[in-house]
Amino acid sequence: MRLTRYFLPVLKENPSEASIVSHRYMLRAGMIKQSSAGIYSWLPLGFKVLKNIENIVHEEQIRAGHIPMLMPTIQPADLWRESGRYEDYGEEMLRIKDRHGHDMLFGPTNEEMITDIFRAHVGSYKDLPLTLYHIQWKFRDERRPRFGVMRGREFYMKDGYNFDLSKEDALHAYNRHLVSYLRTYERMGLQAIPMRADSGPIGGDDTHEFLVLADTGESEVFYDSAITDLKFGDREIDYDSVEQCQNVLEEFTSRYARTDETHDEAAFANVPEERRRSARGIEVGQIFYFGTKYSESMGATVINDKQEQIPVHMGSHGIGVSRLVGAIIEASHDDKGIIWPEGVTPFHCGIVNLKQGDAEADAACEALYSALESHGLEPLYDDRNERAGGKFATMDLIGLPWRITVGPRGLKNGVVELTSRRTGESQEMAPDAAVARVAEIYANL
Amino acid sequence: MRLTRYFLPVLKENPSEASIVSHRYMLRAGMIKQSSAGIYSWLPLGFKVLKNIENIVHEEQIRAGHIPMLMPTIQPADLWRESGRYEDYGEEMLRIKDRHGHDMLFGPTNEEMITDIFRAHVGSYKDLPLTLYHIQWKFRDERRPRFGVMRGREFYMKDGYNFDLSKEDALHAYNRHLVSYLRTYERMGLQAIPMRADSGPIGGDDTHEFLVLADTGESEVFYDSAITDLKFGDREIDYDSVEQCQNVLEEFTSRYARTDETHDEAAFANVPEERRRSARGIEVGQIFYFGTKYSESMGATVINDKQEQIPVHMGSHGIGVSRLVGAIIEASHDDKGIIWPEGVTPFHCGIVNLKQGDAEADAACEALYSALESHGLEPLYDDRNERAGGKFATMDLIGLPWRITVGPRGLKNGVVELTSRRTGESQEMAPDAAVARVAEIYANL
Repeated sequence: MRLTRYFLPVLKENPSEASIVSHRYMLRAGMIKQSSAGIYSWLPLGFKVLKNIENIVHEEQIRAGHIPMLMPTIQPADLWRESGRYEDYGEEMLRIKDRHGHDMLFGPTNEEMITDIFRAHVGSYKDLPLTLYHIQWKFRDERRPRFGVMRGREFYMKDGYNFDLSKEDALHAYNRHLVSYLRTYERMGLQAIPMRADSGPIGGDDTHEFLVLADTGESEVFYDSAITDLKFGDREIDYDSVEQCQNVLEEFTSRYARTDETHDEAAFANVPEERRRSARGIEVGQIFYFGTKYSESMGATVINDKQEQIPVHMGSHGIGVSRLVGAIIEASHDDKGIIWPEGVTPFHCGIVNLKQGDAEADAACEALYSALESHGLEPLYDDRNERAGGKFATMDLIGLPWRITVGPRGLKNGVVELTSRRTGESQEMAPDAAVARVAEIYANL
Repeated sequence: MRLTRYFLPVLKENPSEASIVSHRYMLRAGMIKQSSAGIYSWLPLGFKVLKNIENIVHEEQIRAGHIPMLMPTIQPADLWRESGRYEDYGEEMLRIKDRHGHDMLFGPTNEEMITDIFRAHVGSYKDLPLTLYHIQWKFRDERRPRFGVMRGREFYMKDGYNFDLSKEDALHAYNRHLVSYLRTYERMGLQAIPMRADSGPIGGDDTHEFLVLADTGESEVFYDSAITDLKFGDREIDYDSVEQCQNVLEEFTSRYARTDETHDEAAFANVPEERRRSARGIEVGQIFYFGTKYSESMGATVINDKQEQIPVHMGSHGIGVSRLVGAIIEASHDDKGIIWPEGVTPFHCGIVNLKQGDAEADAACEALYSALESHGLEPLYDDRNERAGGKFATMDLIGLPWRITVGPRGLKNGVVELTSRRTGESQEMAPDAAVARVAEIYANL
C-alpha cells in the first residue's frame, strides 16, 4: 500500500479521553474512531490487525478439529427464558423490542443458541464429539465502558462450544481448547498464562482464564515465576490424543497461577519465595467446562449406545478478538508507539523514502515495493512529500516491525537501511539483501 | 473434511415454511437454521459459502483500490438526526435504548457514520479521491421477512462510500464500482445485469441495480436480450483510467435494461421485437451517486486548491453478501439440489466411498483426499457407513461441482469415477488423473 492512497489519519496530540496506552496509541495511529461510548469504528489500519488476529484464531481452531459457523447477533428472548438467564443477566444485556413487539436482545454470548441448534439436529451419541465455534460481534451494555476496545460495549469474540457424551470426553475437549489457545496466543507474540478462574454468570466447574501480563491489566494476578519460562513452541500435537492434551494442560497449569478472584494465600505460600510474583494481567480468553447445565434445562440430549437418553456434557470457550488488539499493544510498545509482533502486524515492512521526487530514490522504493510483494509480503510505502522526521515518527507510531529507509546518499553506496522497530538497530545493506532478510523473518514465523 | 467429523445436518423432508427453492435447499442441505423470523444461524456448510463470497468481494474491492475498514452494528440516533433520516426511516429501523436511555439503532446502512468519520479526519482535497468500504451485519426490521436469507432481517452486506472533489471524479468512482461489481459477480458464476434503477430512501441521481435473472426474482425486469451476451471475462482493467472504466460502463449499460420501477414502454419499444425480453430478477447489488446530499447536511467539506471550502461528492455502493448465497442457488440448481459454481463452492470436490470398511477402497479414498489437499484443494470425504444411494443424494443436495466415486469394482481396473454435478456426466479414469483434472479446473478459475 502506498500511503498517499491509504486512509491513515494519525493524530499528533494525545487524545484526552484515553487513559491507557493501547487506547491512546490506537486513536493516535488512526486504528479506531469512537462512535458512541464503548463502540468503535475500526479504521483501515485497525481493521487489518483485527483481521489478522481473527485469521489466527480461525486457523488454530480448525487445526484443533473445531468447526466454524456463524450465529446472528440478534437473539430471541425466549431462548434465554428457557435457560433462566434472561432475568439474571441484568442491565448488561442490551434488550430490544422489534416492530411486532417481540422481546429480542443483542447476544452477549451464545450458550442458549448453540444448545438450541444442537438439540434440533443431533440425537445420537454417534454424532459426538462435536465442537462448534463462531467469531461474531457481541454486546455487553457496560455501565462505564473504558480503555478503548479493551472494555467496549460492542466487541468481537470467538466463542466455541463442545458437546460430549461424558464428563471425561468433555474434559478432553477442555484440554484441547487449552492447547489450541496456547498456540493461538503465541502466534500473536503473546505470553498468555492460564490461571484458575472464577466461573461467573456462565457457571461451571472447571475454568481457566488466559492472562497477559501488563501493568495496565484489570486483574491482580499471583503466580510462580517458573511459569513464564514455559513455551508451547512449535511442538507437534495430535489433538485427538487424550494423553498429549492432558500432558500439556498439566505442564501449563500445575504451577501456582491465579487471579485475585481465586487467589489462595496458603497455597501461594508453598511457592518458593523467590519465585512468588504478584502483577497485573489482562484477560484475553477463558475456557469452561460446565457439564449439563444448559443441556438439562434446554433438553439437549442424545441416545447413548444403551438406548438411554442422556443430556450432553458441554463447555464454552472464548477468545476476546477485539480486546486482543489492545492487549497486544499493552504488552508491546514503547514511548514512540506500538511495536507489532510479526504475527499480527498490519503491514510486514515499511518503506521510507527520504527524498520523495528524487528519481533514483523513487525508483529504488518502487523496486523494493515490488520485491517485497513478490515474496507475498505487504509493504507500506510512505510516498508522501514529507520530511524524514515526520515519516519516521509515523512509522514508529504505527509500529511496523521492520522498516527499510531509502535515501540518495545510501543509494550512491548501493545500500539502504533495515531497521528493527523493537530494538531500534539499523543495518546498511544492499536492497536485495534487505528484502531477503525481511522475507526470511516472515517465512520462519 | 471427513463427513463423520463434520456437522452437516441434512433434512430428508422439504421444510414446509420454505416457499422458494433456495430457502428450501439451504434448510435441507444444513446450511442455515432459523433463529427468529428473518434471522438465521449459518451452519458450517452455509458459513463456508458466505465466507467464500465475502472473500471474493474483498479481493475485488481491494483490486479496485477501495480500502477495507469496519463500522459497528450499533449506531447513535443523533447521527441520523443530523441527516434527517432518523424519522424518515420508519419501522424498518430497529430502534434501541441503551441502559442510560440513549437512542441507538442497529444500522441498516452507513452513510451517516462514514460521513462522520470523513469529516473528523479529512480536510484537504489532497486526501481525495477516497473510497472506504466495509462488510458488516445490518438489520432491516421487515414487516414480513421471507424467502430465507434473500429477504432476512439481519443480513450481511458490503457497503462502500466514495468521497470525491467533483461530480466528474465521483462519476469515475461510480464507474469503477460498476466495473468491479461485474468482475465480482462473474467470479461467483453469476450473470448480474446492471439496470437503471430508482434511488429509494438513500436518494441519488445516478443509480444502477445489478440483477440476476431467476424465475423467483422479486422484480420484474425488461431488457434487450443482446445484453446477456456480454461478458466481462478476464480483461485487464486499469481502475485509475477514467476512459477504461467509462467504456465498460457504456458497453454494459447502453442497451435497454430496467426494472419495473424505471421501465419506460416507449423506450422499450425501440428494442427490436425479437430481442425484447421480460423476466424476473433478483437484486444483488446497487450503486449510487448522490452528490452532496450527506456532505452538505453533515458538513463533510474539504479545502480545494483555491482555498475554498466545498462539500465533497459522494456515492454509496452495496453488494448483498448473504443474499447472494440464496441468489446463486436460485440461478443454479436442479431437482436434486444445489449446483455450486466453482468460485463459491464450500468444498472443491466430494469423495464418495462406495464400500466403507473395504481396505482397498478406504485406502484409495485416503490417498485421493491427501492428493487433493496437496493441490491446495479442500475435499469433502463421505466416510460414513451408508449406502451408495444415500451418499449420492447428499452430494447432489449439497451441490459440490465435482465428485470422485471410489468402489472396489473400479479399483480392480485401476479406475475411479469423476462426475460433474452440473452435467451429470461421469468419466472413469485413474485416481491420479481425476485429481489432476480437478486441480486443473480450479487452477483455471
